[in-house]
Amino acid sequence: MTVSEREAAAARTPMTRELLYRAATELFVERGYEDTTMADIAERAGTARRTAFNHFPNKGDIPMMWARLMADRAVEAFAAHAEDRTVERIYAYFQHITRLVGSRPELSRQMLLGWVAAGGPIRYESQFLADLTPVLEAGQLRGEIDASVDIATAARALGDTYTGVIFRWVTERWSSPHLQVVTDEAIGLLLSGIRAHA
Amino acid sequence: MTVSEREAAAARTPMTRELLYRAATELFVERGYEDTTMADIAERAGTARRTAFNHFPNKGDIPMMWARLMADRAVEAFAAHAEDRTVERIYAYFQHITRLVGSRPELSRQMLLGWVAAGGPIRYESQFLADLTPVLEAGQLRGEIDASVDIATAARALGDTYTGVIFRWVTERWSSPHLQVVTDEAIGLLLSGIRAHA
Repeated sequence: MTVSEREAAAARTPMTRELLYRAATELFVERGYEDTTMADIAERAGTARRTAFNHFPNKGDIPMMWARLMADRAVEAFAAHAEDRTVERIYAYFQHITRLVGSRPELSRQMLLGWVAAGGPIRYESQFLADLTPVLEAGQLRGEIDASVDIATAARALGDTYTGVIFRWVTERWSSPHLQVVTDEAIGLLLSGIRAHA
Repeated sequence: MTVSEREAAAARTPMTRELLYRAATELFVERGYEDTTMADIAERAGTARRTAFNHFPNKGDIPMMWARLMADRAVEAFAAHAEDRTVERIYAYFQHITRLVGSRPELSRQMLLGWVAAGGPIRYESQFLADLTPVLEAGQLRGEIDASVDIATAARALGDTYTGVIFRWVTERWSSPHLQVVTDEAIGLLLSGIRAHA
């Protein structure tokens, strides 16, 4: 391969990955996560099986990518609410994820089933710790979060509580507005535990 | 089969189930959950494969049974702390589970891996809701839990927060005393959110 051929190949790589990811999302909605194979995904994307396995060595890597994409987009909520109080920013963050999840409910359900089947809740530290820590730290410095609160414990407890809400939504199939209500209630209990009491 | 033969068979059934469960616990510790098959379990228990599948149609049913056994034993903590304040009773409940989990760490890790792989966190409402609801309700009646708190939300948030602690313990392999500290910290944040504020 010449340099320009290598550059062209490198430029193609993200496109192939994107094509495979999109094919997977279609198939998960049509057939369910469990009944979709990597071979199905390669075929739908029009790539060789080997190419598909190069991008996603395990089918479980696809819901992992979905979870990362969702978290990356949710962080935008912090920028949009930069001037708000800490508790409002945290509500906004989880509400944003809930909106994203609720906007494609069947895809989200299948991705969550896949994420759990792949051992996600045990294998990976969720993005919540990284996302929430700076916001909680800033809130503690401003006196909005109680000085005695351990920030990592609070960030993880918020993430775990939210994860539980989302897991129940998968089987209980609440409407999107109900999911928002349950999200706010669960997060609210923890926020009332960590905010500075007058 | 005569009546007495049927009675004898019925009496034998729990023993076989117990033998299979015990064989599974040995194998999970020796080889890991993932590398143990139902055929291995049947062989170790000295039963036919078909018998093993009659008792546990899926390997994932074994960690489900483990989780139920753990919860059944943890509820005993409530009886032992019947005279304590609500928050102390809830600490005692989770500390009891943590002691049980920590007393056989490798078995607990393998069971938790199996429980997640079987979709436990999504497929089953955890025992926490059923266990904690009466204690929280009684505490709210006595004015120890804030009147505005929704009891089911609080019970689930406590369970989800604790589940997150236990999942991280599987990969991070904290010592048992450290697991107790992390349990108390995480549960404490929520309890400070739901207890009645003077």
